[in-house]
Amino acid sequence: MREMIQKIGGQAQEASRTLAASNGQRRGAALRAMAQALQTHETEILAANTADIRRAAENAMRPALQDRLRLTAARMEDIRTAVLKIAGEADPIGRILGGGVRPNGLRVERVSVPLGVIAVIFEARPNVAADAAALCVKSGNAVILRGGKEAVESNKAIVAALREGLTQTGLPADGVQLVADTTRQSAEALMQAVGLVDVLIPRGGAGLIRAVVEQARVPVIETGAGVCHAYIDAQAELAMAVAIVENAKTTRPSVCNALETVLIHREIAPMLLPALARRLGVYPVELRCDEAALALLPGDVNVRPAEEEDWATEYGGLTMSVRIVDGMENAMAHIRKYGTKHSECIVTRDYAAAQRFLREVDAAAVYVNASTRFTDGGEFGYGAEIGISTQKLHARGPLGLAHLTSEKYMVYGEGQIRT
Amino acid sequence: MREMIQKIGGQAQEASRTLAASNGQRRGAALRAMAQALQTHETEILAANTADIRRAAENAMRPALQDRLRLTAARMEDIRTAVLKIAGEADPIGRILGGGVRPNGLRVERVSVPLGVIAVIFEARPNVAADAAALCVKSGNAVILRGGKEAVESNKAIVAALREGLTQTGLPADGVQLVADTTRQSAEALMQAVGLVDVLIPRGGAGLIRAVVEQARVPVIETGAGVCHAYIDAQAELAMAVAIVENAKTTRPSVCNALETVLIHREIAPMLLPALARRLGVYPVELRCDEAALALLPGDVNVRPAEEEDWATEYGGLTMSVRIVDGMENAMAHIRKYGTKHSECIVTRDYAAAQRFLREVDAAAVYVNASTRFTDGGEFGYGAEIGISTQKLHARGPLGLAHLTSEKYMVYGEGQIRT
Repeated sequence: MREMIQKIGGQAQEASRTLAASNGQRRGAALRAMAQALQTHETEILAANTADIRRAAENAMRPALQDRLRLTAARMEDIRTAVLKIAGEADPIGRILGGGVRPNGLRVERVSVPLGVIAVIFEARPNVAADAAALCVKSGNAVILRGGKEAVESNKAIVAALREGLTQTGLPADGVQLVADTTRQSAEALMQAVGLVDVLIPRGGAGLIRAVVEQARVPVIETGAGVCHAYIDAQAELAMAVAIVENAKTTRPSVCNALETVLIHREIAPMLLPALARRLGVYPVELRCDEAALALLPGDVNVRPAEEEDWATEYGGLTMSVRIVDGMENAMAHIRKYGTKHSECIVTRDYAAAQRFLREVDAAAVYVNASTRFTDGGEFGYGAEIGISTQKLHARGPLGLAHLTSEKYMVYGEGQIRT
Repeated sequence: MREMIQKIGGQAQEASRTLAASNGQRRGAALRAMAQALQTHETEILAANTADIRRAAENAMRPALQDRLRLTAARMEDIRTAVLKIAGEADPIGRILGGGVRPNGLRVERVSVPLGVIAVIFEARPNVAADAAALCVKSGNAVILRGGKEAVESNKAIVAALREGLTQTGLPADGVQLVADTTRQSAEALMQAVGLVDVLIPRGGAGLIRAVVEQARVPVIETGAGVCHAYIDAQAELAMAVAIVENAKTTRPSVCNALETVLIHREIAPMLLPALARRLGVYPVELRCDEAALALLPGDVNVRPAEEEDWATEYGGLTMSVRIVDGMENAMAHIRKYGTKHSECIVTRDYAAAQRFLREVDAAAVYVNASTRFTDGGEFGYGAEIGISTQKLHARGPLGLAHLTSEKYMVYGEGQIRT
C-alpha cells in the first residue's frame, strides 16, 4: 500500500511542477476541457453510478445516503456548471501580495504560489471529485482523490474524464489522480506521505476528521464538523429569532452550517419557546430539551429530555437541542464547551451584547441577527469552496481558491550581501 | 505528565481569552512592563544563568553552545531592546482584512484574531523565551514555553520576570507559562495536547523538527532547517558570485539562512572555483567536493571528497559542499532532492535564467544575485520574527506578528435568512 501511495505521490509531485509553471489561461482552458469531457463521457459516468447505487441498495444503504450518491443528468449538469464557474474565477496564482524595495536596493516580492500536491479524502458524494479537482487544478495544484468505497465506480469514471480533459490542454494527466483502493490502509498511507502530500483535506463527517487529526503526519486542513448554536438574548425580537432558528435548522439540516442547539435567555424563554416549538413542529423537528425548557413546553410537542451527549452532537437531521441559560456568560461558556468553532449566532437588539458576542466567541463565523446557513464561500462573496475550515491555521471559514495557495518571497538583487 | 500539561494548557486557554479581548494599548503596555521587569530582576536572571553555565561546563558542553547559553548585561540589554521594539510594532489584531455588504444587506467582515495558545519548544538559547513571549503577547496569544534542560534556571528566572510584568498591566500571568519539566515526556505531552495548544512552533535543529513532525497531533509550524544553495550560472559575474558565496557561508554559519552548498555551472567552474577556494580559505572553510570540483582545485586547499550525506547536511559551521552541474536543470534537480525549501539563490546575468529560477524553484525565498542571509523578518521589512517557516501552510518565510494570528468572519445581520 505504501508503495502504491509513494508511486501516486511521486507522479503527483512531478505533475504539480508542470501545473505550477503553467499560466492561468492554460489552467482555465483545462477546466473547460474537463467540463466538456464530463459531458462527452456522461453515459459511462451514469452507468458507473448505477452500479454503485445497485451495490448500495444491496447493502441496504440508508435512502438519504443513496440519494447523496446518486447522479442524474441534472446533477451532472450542475457538476459541469460548477467546474465552469471555477474556470471563470480570477487566477489565485502569481498575485503579488506585498513587498517593496529595501534600503539596500534589494527588491522583495511576496507572491502567491500553489501548495503543490493536495490530497482530498472524502466520503460518498461523487460530485466532490470533480469539484475538488477543478479547484486544485485552477490553483496550480495536483490533486490525489481518495473517495469512499460506496462511490468507487462513479469516481473512477469521473476521474478518467477529468484526466482526459487535462491532457487535451497539454497538462499532465497525473494532475488529477484517484486512489482506487478504498481500504482504510490507503487513507492511512496518504495521511503519512510526508514529502509527497503537501496538504491533506478531509471532507466528511466527524469520524473521518477525528481519524485524520489522530493519524496524519502531513499538514491538514480540518473541515466540516459543525455543532452550531444560536443564542437568543433577552433583548431578541421574537419573530426574528423564530425565523432565524427555523431557517438555520430546517433548510438543509445535513450540512455543517445547520443549527444544532438553541440557547435561550431565561427571561424570554416563556414567550419564545412555545412559539418556536409550534413553528418547528411543522417539519417536524424533534427537540431535546433541558429541564427548564421542558417545563415551558405543552405536552403535544415532539420533545424529549436532552442527554449530556446531545449538546456535542451534530445531528445532521431534524433534531435540535434546547437549553435555557441565565445570560450571555452562560451561553458563551456552553458554546466554548460544546461548539466546534464553526458558526455561532446571537439574536439581540442590544448593541453591547452584539459587539461582545462578535468579539469573544471563538469561531470561524460569528453572526448577529442572521442565519448560520450563510457560512459559505458563495454567500460570503468569495466564490467556490472545498469546505469550511474549522481550524485556525492557514485558513478559517470557507476554503476557496485563495486558500489553496502558499506564498514565496522572490528577491531581486544586484550583488547585495548582508553586512 | 499529561495531567501537568493539561493543567498548564487549561490555564493558558483561559488566559488567552483575556488576552484576545484586551486592546492593543494594554498589550503594548504589558510588553513595556515585561522589559522593565527583566531589568528589575537582572541580577537574579544573571545568577540563574551562571548556574546553568556552571552545570554546562561540568557536563563538558561545547564552547560554542556554552556561548549561546550565556547571558551578560549587554545581552540582557539586547533582549529588552527586542521586547520594546516588538511593543512598538503595529497591532496585528483586529485588522479588517476584507469583506463587504452582500446583496441581501448582510455585512461580512474578515478580521484578524489571535491564534489562542501557542506552544514554543526551543533549545538552549534563553533569549528565545523573552522573544517568543513578547511576540505572542503582542499578538494576543497565550504562550507555553518549553526550553531545553541546559537553560532551565535562566528560563525560570526570565519567565518569572515576564509574568510579573504581565500582571502589572492587569493581564493574567498565565499568558506566559514555562514547562519547567525538561524531559522528553513534557515535549511529547505538549505535542499531543489537542484542544489546548492551538499551534506548536518548534525552534531548533533538524532533530527537534523531525521529532515534532513525527509525533505532533496539534497543528505545527515548522521552522528552522535550512540546507540553502547558491547556483552559479555560466553567465554569472565572477566577483559577484564569490562575494555572495563568501557572505552567505561565513557571516554567521550557525543560522538557518547560511549557505551549505554551491552548485557551479561546468563552463564557469575552472575560473570560479579556484578563486572561490582561495577566498574561503582565509576563514578557513572546508570544502566537500564532487569529483569534477576536486579536479579543478590545487592541492593546498582545505578540501575532501563529498559523501552522499554531505548534500543533505546543514553544517552549521565553516564547511560547504561543492558540486559541478551541467546547467539549470541539473541545479534545480539537486535543489529539489536535497534542499529544505528555505532559501535558494542563482547568480547570473541571464534574464531568462533568473526568471526561470525564481518561478520554478520551490522555497520560502528565492534570490537572484543576492546573499541568502537576507531571509529574515527585519531584512525583508516585516519586523521581528519567531523563526523562518519552511512549510507551505499558514506562513512561509519569516514568521512575524502577522502570522501569529488567525481570522474570523464577523457577520452583521438584520434578520437575514438563507433562501
